[in-house]
Amino acid sequence: MRRDRVREDSVFGRRERVHGTIVRRNLPAVDRQLTSLDRILDGAHRCETNVHPELVRQGLPNGKQHRYVATDRTTSRSAGANYRSTGRETPPEEHMIDATENSLAILEAVHQNDRAGVTALADETGLAKSTVHSHVETLKRSGYLVQSGDDLELSLRFLQFGLDTRRREPHRIAAREKVVELARRTGERAHYVVREGTNAVFLYSETGENAVRTGVHTGDFVPLHATASGKAILANLPPERIEMIVSESDRRQVTPNTITDLDALREALRNVRSRGLAFNDGEYVERLWSVGAPVFDDEKRVLGSMSVSVPANRLGRPGVKDELSTTLLETVNELELEIAHA
Amino acid sequence: MRRDRVREDSVFGRRERVHGTIVRRNLPAVDRQLTSLDRILDGAHRCETNVHPELVRQGLPNGKQHRYVATDRTTSRSAGANYRSTGRETPPEEHMIDATENSLAILEAVHQNDRAGVTALADETGLAKSTVHSHVETLKRSGYLVQSGDDLELSLRFLQFGLDTRRREPHRIAAREKVVELARRTGERAHYVVREGTNAVFLYSETGENAVRTGVHTGDFVPLHATASGKAILANLPPERIEMIVSESDRRQVTPNTITDLDALREALRNVRSRGLAFNDGEYVERLWSVGAPVFDDEKRVLGSMSVSVPANRLGRPGVKDELSTTLLETVNELELEIAHA
Repeated sequence: MRRDRVREDSVFGRRERVHGTIVRRNLPAVDRQLTSLDRILDGAHRCETNVHPELVRQGLPNGKQHRYVATDRTTSRSAGANYRSTGRETPPEEHMIDATENSLAILEAVHQNDRAGVTALADETGLAKSTVHSHVETLKRSGYLVQSGDDLELSLRFLQFGLDTRRREPHRIAAREKVVELARRTGERAHYVVREGTNAVFLYSETGENAVRTGVHTGDFVPLHATASGKAILANLPPERIEMIVSESDRRQVTPNTITDLDALREALRNVRSRGLAFNDGEYVERLWSVGAPVFDDEKRVLGSMSVSVPANRLGRPGVKDELSTTLLETVNELELEIAHA
Repeated sequence: MRRDRVREDSVFGRRERVHGTIVRRNLPAVDRQLTSLDRILDGAHRCETNVHPELVRQGLPNGKQHRYVATDRTTSRSAGANYRSTGRETPPEEHMIDATENSLAILEAVHQNDRAGVTALADETGLAKSTVHSHVETLKRSGYLVQSGDDLELSLRFLQFGLDTRRREPHRIAAREKVVELARRTGERAHYVVREGTNAVFLYSETGENAVRTGVHTGDFVPLHATASGKAILANLPPERIEMIVSESDRRQVTPNTITDLDALREALRNVRSRGLAFNDGEYVERLWSVGAPVFDDEKRVLGSMSVSVPANRLGRPGVKDELSTTLLETVNELELEIAHA
């Protein structure tokens, strides 16, 4: 069902279609190789240098973080990793546990493919089949993978972990009910979103009677800069946090409308902050328009955001945008009152 | 919020209240120690022998699986593990990857506590603080743990994995809508449940207007033998599979009403199979009554089960059980038709 869906916004491992093949980034082995290389190169000054025909290092604007992209042309596989220098004597990678990274890479590969056999997992992670076998045994025995015929699937234990994670914050329960109400009132698709790192995570989505089920699913991680929900949260963080996130994120171009320019994004976020509303004009899904509003606790800290998405062609009718924005703000206002007096 | 909830049915690590303290089972270190012990003991015949004052080995009826329980009285911590002998030359534990097991133990400890610091994690897993630190760094960098002040929390990435896992099978989407309908029609709490191993996993739950929110949450793993949903699935598996599951499961006594006797359970399952309905009379939550029915695909394979739960005192009114059972069977019938013709 998701086999043909390329997920480009994973924080774990990014994928790209290269020569018609889905390739995996963030391969632990290549990652480690790049880390060693970083030590040899010793410092940030040589950041821009190409060190090997196959290897490109890119310094990110804040000077603290480097981005590595390596392509192995023989296997047409590529790997990338973000490494933030901490200024400590020992780089954090010294503490990284290879076996754990490999186990996680296997879990991710199973997730990406819905289900997979040992051979496919070896192929996808670049690990030896015997190594994959040991990891698979460990993950099965620990209850994270389940056997399904010849293939492996993620255990539903992830559902338990995930739903408990969603239930962790009390405001999210109230938000869920308001998402249902917002979808009913607008007839469109409504969402409640929180931030994790540089991503917007869609916690709850509900589909009104006129809505199209497009764009995102609950649980999806989406870059903050490319959605109304994400911008509504981002714009209302403390200024130094905004600056850190916008400069550290890769501001990926999802559609032709995505705001990728750093200054343009800063300007957009200032507007969102002053207006109390964020718009998304086909910036994540083409021809899908959204409006998002931040949700604050009673100390004016942003907890998340609510949003409504509509197919852009519905905006032809006059007053639609205003009507949706007003309904959204009313619902958010009710939610904030519930949260403050819970 | 869940800090005081003792989860006894985890497949990962069981917990018990011992002397008022929550102790963790399935500590990888003790697990390995027990595995070594098993090799020394060489075979199933000495299963019943107490090998150490602190250590009790119990052979399970099928003779293939042993259950170990160890208690370290000085730390009042206990550990247990199920180990199934495969009859191969090399026991499967040879392939087990310690680092992965330790990383998973840390994730589980964070899950159990909602959030936890490195010191608490070291205390709970029995690992050195420096080891925990390395695992935490790896898990943070890979996107599975997030920092929250001084503590660590599970990443919402588990939500993505979990919800994708729930969406994996198409029948589950149809089941969700029927759960909502069943809760509305009965006014009580309705569930859709599937099996994973010896557990029933609650995929969807909906609360009708008269319902009490008690018992289980979505995502919960519950022993098959102790719930109406679980028995409805279990009874309709192929006979050899039923026998394997009932004899391998520990048939834990959850309430005084839980059926733990092997023959009594076999008899109960035969009744469920012939009747097409399973009942739960306070067997998982005291004074909570449930009725469950299996959901079959068009080849008569059991996919899962639907159930309705009501406080036992509501059963005083005549005809309530029959009414609930009839509504349940009608809804399941509709669901099966939808699944068969999807």
